[in-house]
Amino acid sequence: MTTTILEICRRARAAAYEVAKLSGEAKNAALCRMANALEANADKILAANKLDVETARAKGMKPALLDRLALDKKKIGEMAKGLREVSTLADPVGAIEKTWTRPNGLVIGILRVPMGVVGVIYESRPNVTSDSAGICIKSGNAVILRGGSDAINSNVSIGGVLQEALTGTGVPADAVQVVASPDRAAAEELMGMREYIDVLVPRGGADLIKTVVEKSRIPVIETGTGNCHIYVSEDADLQKAIPIIINAKCQRPGVCNAAEKLLVDFSVAEAFLPKAIAALREKGVEIRGDEETLKIVPDVKPATEKDWHTEYLDLRMSVKVVHSIDEAIDHINKYSSHHSDSIITASFDKALKFIKQVDSAAVYWNASTRFTDGNQFGLGAEIGISTQKLHARGPMSAQHLTTIKYFVLGRGHIRE
Amino acid sequence: MTTTILEICRRARAAAYEVAKLSGEAKNAALCRMANALEANADKILAANKLDVETARAKGMKPALLDRLALDKKKIGEMAKGLREVSTLADPVGAIEKTWTRPNGLVIGILRVPMGVVGVIYESRPNVTSDSAGICIKSGNAVILRGGSDAINSNVSIGGVLQEALTGTGVPADAVQVVASPDRAAAEELMGMREYIDVLVPRGGADLIKTVVEKSRIPVIETGTGNCHIYVSEDADLQKAIPIIINAKCQRPGVCNAAEKLLVDFSVAEAFLPKAIAALREKGVEIRGDEETLKIVPDVKPATEKDWHTEYLDLRMSVKVVHSIDEAIDHINKYSSHHSDSIITASFDKALKFIKQVDSAAVYWNASTRFTDGNQFGLGAEIGISTQKLHARGPMSAQHLTTIKYFVLGRGHIRE
Repeated sequence: MTTTILEICRRARAAAYEVAKLSGEAKNAALCRMANALEANADKILAANKLDVETARAKGMKPALLDRLALDKKKIGEMAKGLREVSTLADPVGAIEKTWTRPNGLVIGILRVPMGVVGVIYESRPNVTSDSAGICIKSGNAVILRGGSDAINSNVSIGGVLQEALTGTGVPADAVQVVASPDRAAAEELMGMREYIDVLVPRGGADLIKTVVEKSRIPVIETGTGNCHIYVSEDADLQKAIPIIINAKCQRPGVCNAAEKLLVDFSVAEAFLPKAIAALREKGVEIRGDEETLKIVPDVKPATEKDWHTEYLDLRMSVKVVHSIDEAIDHINKYSSHHSDSIITASFDKALKFIKQVDSAAVYWNASTRFTDGNQFGLGAEIGISTQKLHARGPMSAQHLTTIKYFVLGRGHIRE
Repeated sequence: MTTTILEICRRARAAAYEVAKLSGEAKNAALCRMANALEANADKILAANKLDVETARAKGMKPALLDRLALDKKKIGEMAKGLREVSTLADPVGAIEKTWTRPNGLVIGILRVPMGVVGVIYESRPNVTSDSAGICIKSGNAVILRGGSDAINSNVSIGGVLQEALTGTGVPADAVQVVASPDRAAAEELMGMREYIDVLVPRGGADLIKTVVEKSRIPVIETGTGNCHIYVSEDADLQKAIPIIINAKCQRPGVCNAAEKLLVDFSVAEAFLPKAIAALREKGVEIRGDEETLKIVPDVKPATEKDWHTEYLDLRMSVKVVHSIDEAIDHINKYSSHHSDSIITASFDKALKFIKQVDSAAVYWNASTRFTDGNQFGLGAEIGISTQKLHARGPMSAQHLTTIKYFVLGRGHIRE
């Protein structure tokens, strides 16, 4: 007997009010119990995961995706470690952020509170189940987790272990619920539960995110699409520029903050492009270029309009020669996914202009774009990298799953 | 020839990048010119408004709605005054909110920036056109305004006057655009323009908001539904409670922060309810009640389940006897629209519990719920009262139409 989506939502809402009342200590104790339980039940989780992996392999799942789906003791250890790390962070809720007194004597204040119920829709990476649960509990929320159908056995097993671990803690078991139905209809029903779910976070590829944005009636935070740029200005330290570009492109090409595009000022293009392209090719990067790039390095494949829009997530990079910083900024604002973009320059004025005018979540000066995840900003583990402007932008950690409420203290105050 | 929605969106995006660069002074100068232009062109605006009013009257529009639609010199003066007031507020963008240094030497900071392009969809109140334009320009955004078809001539006229006023200021005319097409299809097309519009704010009744929430692919901030409660605790100062209830219910019954429900603790119900109900009835309020209320005041009409959910926006109030503060909080969290709810009590402990556990944008202690709008919190003119938890909750002023970006300053930093 499967629990209905409505029942899951009702339970989550009730649990959320309980989690919201808890102290930081109570939540942290629950997180540590969750971590211990994952390790203690590793064999059970691995058995469930094996079922998923076998089914997926039989269905012909690609090796890269199988790799994301498959768990082992080391990965379970990392999931547990992640929960313990979240438990060491400061409590993101409960603070009175500000108070002020109005001329009529009303005292008004702003209190930081949990969001309530968070929905997470993701693909077939079972570690997202425990990572998301950890961040949501830390921020005082209840969470409803709906992973990809390929990972259904793993997710249900992890969810069961986490719920069992919560028994006897202050956190109700219903604060962490996994949707056991692998049907698409269940996911769509979930996306309509505006009355019960306060925010929906899709985690996964562009298609998943697009579907959620289109179908959800719940406020969504769009995450994770990255068409990132590096702009080499006329006064860049060209020696420093190459390692930054190589790092941004090659250190982990499949992630959202990997650089996909290289813009080079025309005044340094002739000196710089042959070296930069040679260095990238040495790392196995396929280069595409605009007309001016082809004039300087003729054996480059021409880039099409589509290239400027595309997030490759692969060892490929398109190169364009620009004639001013304004052209670079305009190009980025037109084609970027507003994730992470970097300028390489020795000029403070140019850096400042770039930082102010490039409309992206993270704007870099003389650094690789690869720092916009993995807690490199020091804000704690992330539930995603937001590329929208509403509520949270850039790395979203526990603090971004909170909201505020106003409190208003009167002594019989009425409005005139 | 009408400008297409796509063309309006493209122009707004380009204008937004220009407005974002402006100083506070430049934006304030533009706001004052907009105010002057409204007054100087009052006759033109009133002539356009007359067309709308005549058409609406011929179609049989109700007097209350006609009253909202009709402009006069005084109302235009108030619109101008509103713009001048917004110009005196502090600039909500440009501040560096925080900077920190990572162990690897990367300097990271948070910069407060405009949202970009704001869409406003509203009903037939022409003053919303200039009020929204003012708040959006103040916060460094471009705005696309789509008012009700009944006010189309008024809105196009006001939009034209404001655009003309912007000529010669730093703010491009395209930063304030009114959608001239009265077709529903135009509104629906607008709601799909996620690539161009960063946030959509519906202003109006429950039906309008529901439609926008369902149809929009752009992030929406839900505003303005109010099913507000007053809970009279066992230790309330009953003398003070009555004027608070009368004010919350009667001072302006048609607005979202008017109280619709009264919860009274059973231990004071017999002493308090006859007096409270008599006082409300004296003000013309129709009372409905639960069973226990009817036992105390028998001539009250029984309240149905639907009553507890309903925002009356009228001189009507439903009354319920509750047996504990927990029952009061549970009832409010179940039925409230999460807007504004108040507790009347002499107990600090009870007030604190109520403030912490009632899941609403504004939670009051010993005060009327009527303070959640009209700049009563002192945050500046509002574009709406948000009842969702994402991004902005409660009164939304210019500061809430901003977002942040991260800047990351390296010296050749790459990720290991």
